Order: sequence, then structure tokens, then C-alpha cells
Amino acid sequence: MTPNVSSFSGGSLLLAWQLKDKRVLIVGGGDVASGRIESVLVADALITLVAPSPSLHPVTQKFIQESPRITYHDRLFAGPSDLDGVHMVLTALDDVDKSREICALCRDRRIPVNVADIPPSCDFYFGSQVRSGPLQIMISTNGQSPKLANIIRRKIEATLPEHAGEAVEKVGELRTKLRDRAPGVGGELGKRRMRWMVDVCTAWDMEDLAALDEEMMIRLLDDGWEKNTVLKPDDLAGLKRKHPAAAASSASPLSAAVLPTAVGFALGVAATACLLLAPARR
Amino acid sequence: MTPNVSSFSGGSLLLAWQLKDKRVLIVGGGDVASGRIESVLVADALITLVAPSPSLHPVTQKFIQESPRITYHDRLFAGPSDLDGVHMVLTALDDVDKSREICALCRDRRIPVNVADIPPSCDFYFGSQVRSGPLQIMISTNGQSPKLANIIRRKIEATLPEHAGEAVEKVGELRTKLRDRAPGVGGELGKRRMRWMVDVCTAWDMEDLAALDEEMMIRLLDDGWEKNTVLKPDDLAGLKRKHPAAAASSASPLSAAVLPTAVGFALGVAATACLLLAPARR
Repeated sequence: MTPNVSSFSGGSLLLAWQLKDKRVLIVGGGDVASGRIESVLVADALITLVAPSPSLHPVTQKFIQESPRITYHDRLFAGPSDLDGVHMVLTALDDVDKSREICALCRDRRIPVNVADIPPSCDFYFGSQVRSGPLQIMISTNGQSPKLANIIRRKIEATLPEHAGEAVEKVGELRTKLRDRAPGVGGELGKRRMRWMVDVCTAWDMEDLAALDEEMMIRLLDDGWEKNTVLKPDDLAGLKRKHPAAAASSASPLSAAVLPTAVGFALGVAATACLLLAPARR
Repeated sequence: MTPNVSSFSGGSLLLAWQLKDKRVLIVGGGDVASGRIESVLVADALITLVAPSPSLHPVTQKFIQESPRITYHDRLFAGPSDLDGVHMVLTALDDVDKSREICALCRDRRIPVNVADIPPSCDFYFGSQVRSGPLQIMISTNGQSPKLANIIRRKIEATLPEHAGEAVEKVGELRTKLRDRAPGVGGELGKRRMRWMVDVCTAWDMEDLAALDEEMMIRLLDDGWEKNTVLKPDDLAGLKRKHPAAAASSASPLSAAVLPTAVGFALGVAATACLLLAPARR
């Protein structure tokens, strides 16, 4: 399988930037800034927010009130001293000259910067996002069409397995337990560990993975890993129960608002179609 | 809809990093490095690759031979001087001490760095990716389960509208033409332009957008934008034809290897179709 080198161009390098306990300066407090604050909080950063209070969006105000991770200054950008100890800068201002000035200061100090609406002043862009626990998905059209990015995001949300985020979380827990039981970096054991985790993820579907609890994980390790085999969900029948949310037939939403409606609609369509088409199909 | 601030945690900041004509140092030439090279070439970067030739993976060798954007040095990392003029550093070495040393040098110089397999030495992680022209999608499980990231990537590939990448490309072209016709930043015109593009993306499905050609775009602008309306695909019936690949009912999957073949095939079909259909088009 040889890749076609000449087709590699026109894109960005998609990254998952690590911000845990790093300081991010956000200049501006409007609608765009409130979206930035959410993205940065998700990454466990510390935020310094600089914006005059009359310009604050209601969502930004809510963030300031509720998040202990935000230090708020009711003023305009004060100059280079605002950049001390800062790991990343995001500006969302209407003042183009001020935005460019902040960008230049960041570039001098090699601080990664994004200036909303001025692509040449951006070291990186944002994209449309789907988030479900530790699972994050970004859709970028590289500036060609934010609307299509949004449409594609909704399609992905609608087709993503319902409990994908929980499945990822549980597999992460199982992996940690396995590492505690069979520790060490690399080598034969590392390879066996990796193979076993891959086998579990392949043999189990997302819903079953999402339903794993403490007891089931220990059984998987005791009777699976230790005996060099992978138990199937049915092998844990005594312990296994359907995912609580699924049992109560409440679809736990991926996107906060849209998914439940979409899933409901799709189920309605499917049910109706089955009813109407079934007798004719034989 | 008020966001639940306390649920915002445990993730990364997903970004589309801009590397056009920026210099990226890659240390190591094995399997992992070859994947890094591909990702970085997609972003139109210039690469300096440092690795002894016996350690090169065949795909890395191919990249070195075929890409004019790679400067290759057949040696080990030489020290701080290797970091001069470098915008980003990616290492993929078996030597843990050497990796940590390179990371420390990068941190001193505020150069973003990723050290394969040593998370604390990474400013950012990579994820599973889907790419189709200017459309890029990244799936990150924040280190919890690379295998599930992979399974989710394949599900997204399988459910993504077939011509999504081409649709994004064509909408980008249409947007550029619209900006040429109605130039200026912001204001009422800017808003009208944005609304019109959103309406086009909503009224047209991906397959129809992907089939847009020069003539159809001009008609959309002349009889649509200029008359403050959005034509539907059927309104362009005289011009409109199904997407060539769709007409041949070939489902082209998006994965890296298959895509070039599919694009080649589509171009072949398109060329043939143009030849055969041209006289009928007046």
C-alpha cells in the first residue's frame, strides 16, 4: 500500500493540545469568547479573561460566576505584562488593530495565538466539535465551509454509537487495571497487554463496553487476561446487565440538545417503515 | 440552554495547527515517524528528517525519495543546533533518555514538541484521522483507547456522505467567487453573504454540491445571489448532472489508501463524461 505523496497538501495538522493547569489568556468576552472559554475549560486549563464587563456575553458571565478556573479582569488588554506566564492566547475582539498588536507580542514571545476572524494572525484554527466524556471529535474544513463542517458534525453525532463516550471511559479504566496487574513499559508483556486490549475492543460492542462495571472488569481480568483468553459479554451473563440508560430506554445524548430529537425521529421513521413495508416484502 | 460548567474537564483542546512552509524537525525514521511525516506533509510544512539510514521504514524512504519538501540527514540528532529555525519538533525514537533531552531543549526554546510514547513530554497528542480533500476529521480518546478511536474512525468513514470532501472543496470555490463579486469585510453585505452561503449548504445535499461545476456556480450567482434567492439543484436542471462517480454507482470510501484510486477513477469517468456530454451542453 503505497501512499500518493503528491496528494498530501492543503490541510492542517490536527492536534489534541494539552492544557491541564496551564494558563490561557482570553481577550474579549463576547459570543466567540464564550465558545473559546468552553473549549479551554474542557482541557482543564486555567483561564485569565480580560474584557470590560459591559461587553460580556451572558454565557461568559455564567462561566465567570461558576468556574473557579477563571480569573476575570474587568478591563481592556493592558499590554505586554498581560502575557507573563501565559501558555496560549486567544483573542476575540472587534478591534482589528489591537488584535494584530496582541498577535505580534505573542509571536515575539513564541506564545501560540489565535486571533478570531484574522487567519494570518492564527497559529491554529478551531473546528466543529463533538464531545462525549473522554471522546472528542473535531471536524475541520480548513476554512472552506464552516456550515458544511456543522452539517457533517451533526451527521457524525447522529451516527456515533450511543454510548461511545462511556465505552471509551470504561476501556480506559480496564486498561489502567490491567497495567496495575501487569506493569512495565514495552517488551513482550507490553505487546501482550496491547493485543489483549485490542481483542476486548473487537469482541465487545460499544454498548457492552459502556456497561462494564468494577465486578465485570475484575472477572474479565481474572478469567480472561490471567488465562490468556478474552471473555465475551455472554460469558459474564451472571454479572452482565444492559447499560442502565439503555435499560430505561433513555437515549443519553451526545450533543446536548439535538441528538435525542434526531434519534427519536429516526426511531419513529424506522418503526413506521417496518410496519408499512414488512407485509409487502416477504 | 445553559452549559453545565462542572462537566467541562478531562479533555484536550482540539486544534488545526497551521504549518504552511514552516519547518518541522522529525527525529527518527521508523514506522511511527512515517505516520508523522504524512500528517505534516498534508499541512504543507517543510520537513527536516534526522535518522540513520538503516533505521528507515520503507514508507519513510519513499517519502524522502518523492517529496521535495523533505531535507534528509543520515545521522543521529546532533544537539541544540538542530533546533535552529524550527517551528515544531516530533520525535519517534526508542532511546527514552535522548527523547527526554530533546524535549527539554524544545521546552527551553518554546518549540512545540511531541515525543512518541512519553505523554509527559508532549505538548500535544495525535489522534485517529479521516481526510478527504480539505475535509479533515480527528478522533481523540485522550489516550484512553487508541483501538476504540480506530473503530470510531472507521464508523465515521463508513457513514460520511460519499462526496463530503468534494462538496467542501466546491463550496470553498463558490465562496471565493461570491467574495470576488461582493467584496468587503463584515457589515451588512458580509452578513448577507454568510446567510446566502448557509442557505445554499442547507438547500443542497452533499452529492449535488460535489457536482457543482464552473458553469453551475456562475448560474447560482447570476440567478440566485443577484436576485437574492437560492436556486435549488432542480432549478439548474439544464446544467445539472449527477456526480460522475455516483452516476457510475461506485461507492468511494474515504480511507487513505483507497482514495487516490477512487479519485483517479472519478477523474477518468469525469473526463469521459465531459467528452461525451459536451456537444449536448451548447
